[in-house]
Amino acid sequence: MTLDLLDTPAAIVDTGRMNRNIARMQTRMDALGVRFRPHIKTTKCLDVVRAQLQAGAHGVTVSTLKEAQACFAAGIVDVLYAVGIVPSKLPRAMALKRRGCDLKLLVDNVAAAEAIVAFCHKEGDAVEVWIEVDTDGHRSGIAPEHDALLEVGRILHDGGIRVGGVMAHAGSSYELSSSEALRALAESERAGCVHAAQRLRASGIACPVVSVGSTPTALAAAALDGVTEVRAGVYVFFDLVMHNVGVCTIDDLALSVLTTVIGHQLEKGWVIVDAGWMALSRDRGTAKQARDFGYGVPCTIDGTPLEGYLMIGANQEHGIVAATQTGPKAHEADLSVRFPIGTKLRILPNHACSTGAQFPEYRALAPSGELTVWQRFRGW
Amino acid sequence: MTLDLLDTPAAIVDTGRMNRNIARMQTRMDALGVRFRPHIKTTKCLDVVRAQLQAGAHGVTVSTLKEAQACFAAGIVDVLYAVGIVPSKLPRAMALKRRGCDLKLLVDNVAAAEAIVAFCHKEGDAVEVWIEVDTDGHRSGIAPEHDALLEVGRILHDGGIRVGGVMAHAGSSYELSSSEALRALAESERAGCVHAAQRLRASGIACPVVSVGSTPTALAAAALDGVTEVRAGVYVFFDLVMHNVGVCTIDDLALSVLTTVIGHQLEKGWVIVDAGWMALSRDRGTAKQARDFGYGVPCTIDGTPLEGYLMIGANQEHGIVAATQTGPKAHEADLSVRFPIGTKLRILPNHACSTGAQFPEYRALAPSGELTVWQRFRGW
Repeated sequence: MTLDLLDTPAAIVDTGRMNRNIARMQTRMDALGVRFRPHIKTTKCLDVVRAQLQAGAHGVTVSTLKEAQACFAAGIVDVLYAVGIVPSKLPRAMALKRRGCDLKLLVDNVAAAEAIVAFCHKEGDAVEVWIEVDTDGHRSGIAPEHDALLEVGRILHDGGIRVGGVMAHAGSSYELSSSEALRALAESERAGCVHAAQRLRASGIACPVVSVGSTPTALAAAALDGVTEVRAGVYVFFDLVMHNVGVCTIDDLALSVLTTVIGHQLEKGWVIVDAGWMALSRDRGTAKQARDFGYGVPCTIDGTPLEGYLMIGANQEHGIVAATQTGPKAHEADLSVRFPIGTKLRILPNHACSTGAQFPEYRALAPSGELTVWQRFRGW
Repeated sequence: MTLDLLDTPAAIVDTGRMNRNIARMQTRMDALGVRFRPHIKTTKCLDVVRAQLQAGAHGVTVSTLKEAQACFAAGIVDVLYAVGIVPSKLPRAMALKRRGCDLKLLVDNVAAAEAIVAFCHKEGDAVEVWIEVDTDGHRSGIAPEHDALLEVGRILHDGGIRVGGVMAHAGSSYELSSSEALRALAESERAGCVHAAQRLRASGIACPVVSVGSTPTALAAAALDGVTEVRAGVYVFFDLVMHNVGVCTIDDLALSVLTTVIGHQLEKGWVIVDAGWMALSRDRGTAKQARDFGYGVPCTIDGTPLEGYLMIGANQEHGIVAATQTGPKAHEADLSVRFPIGTKLRILPNHACSTGAQFPEYRALAPSGELTVWQRFRGW
């Protein structure tokens, strides 16, 4: 099977680029002297996760218990479930732990900590818990200086629960675009998370792990004193949002959507393709960035970006590719000659996590041209 | 199993509302004297499709060959594949037809028509083709007055291909919000499509079917003279976009996402829930409408909208629910008391098609409270 014979739309992973991205991150983490725990929510694909672990990663980060179950079933034992746990999910988590999974849960509030203690007491068992720290006001977590940090730590510790670490995710890094700003955010993520750990330790709670990370801060951090591990997810494929943040080039993007030209609206300068939002997702992550890439950057089948063209619109199974204002004059170019019916294109997506999630599987494209099916899992 | 014990996030279908929506559309189509061919791309769920057919629908509209295959496997023979066909998909389409599926393909250009004729000639077989007509400049199709209409019809007809009909989809109806404008668009969709059929017939091509539709125009059309069938998809669940278009009320929305409160950021007035964009999708369809609902309208577990609150943000597995500016003063209300950890909420989505697509299955909630799993299919 070759790319030009694949049914479209299809999610293509350029494994040469992917392996380069994996090596780049792992080399950086090794140089900074920290362990690396990839976030597998980007790919939900064991073939990718195995490549990350083989390159030197320790354990995985997951965003759902389904991901934890899939990893454990594949022999991956060290799993951080990095979304605040709710009491109703504790039975599933405990079942996984009892089967031998070294599962770490996350809390950022007293009520959840108390629920874990009560549940474990009832079960006569325990599960390791980390505390989420908020260093940038992005979403969840307890501010390093907040009283609730020690309160939560104390409830867990006194309840017989091992407080394995603290973790921070400076998700606001996605809104930045200069290396100075990223480096500063990485430093505040580091300093805040280390400070939280020190406060817990000073109050008699061991808290061995200090875990930080997002793709931009992981690639920007100048030093990681006091940090024991870093997490990142989207770096493995990168995407147009990351390009705009400034942590990769277009040539690093490892995920693209293969599509076929199904029609033209020549008066409008439109090429209609069979990849709509069901394939690309509705993610318009670049809309608020300095450079808006619409629904993605179209490339030739060999992956060369089509200068001056964008995917400007998407319905469920229709995409509209057109010249941008700075691109070739659409009304002059004969689009039906340049892109005849049946032409295969590849679209680089805004956001690899959301585009990948639209597909049951990836088609892994090796530098040799060989294609392999890589299954994804989904659901919760 | 009851709603409060379901794992979250989950896609809940209120079957009472769904059946009411189905009955409303079918009654309208019966009164207008046309057949109704539901578009199953919204649900990709045979349980829903069976309810539509049982209510009086004739055949189905699909957006992928995968949907066609799933319907045919379930005994549904009359299938319109309403996306322009590309030559590379003809073998799959022909295989389906040869197994007994009454599959109709769609074209809007000479190249695709020629490819179908060549393919069928080579195969010694034929497949029915409809011609896509563009009545509102929305996306695909040939304008009713354009020379290409007769050219395509002639190529097919002379090539031994049955031209079964013309179809139009006034997708720009999603951009309207007054009943007058919708009625006018429905009339231009009708008139344009009927005119295209008349031109084909005048040139000696039978073209028995005149198929029009989108949910808003189907619900707005005052008369459908010359039309033989109508198609619509999202009416079965409705959503916030359709609410803003003005064709349903909030109480008609049959799809919601069940979620659990996992945290709070009280200083910001945020309630963090375990449904992010992986559950709701990245669809922000109401962003450009008169009323922007963010990522959706939160409701209590029994489906009552929480006045003055919206889901204002979404990360992959985190949603942020907050009071709107016109809502209760977030800093005054104690959100952790009103929405304690573990509270179940239901979020009404912007777009039922994209939100549904994020889930492997629906949980059908009957008026009796009984819950049933309804599988969805996906992929291409």
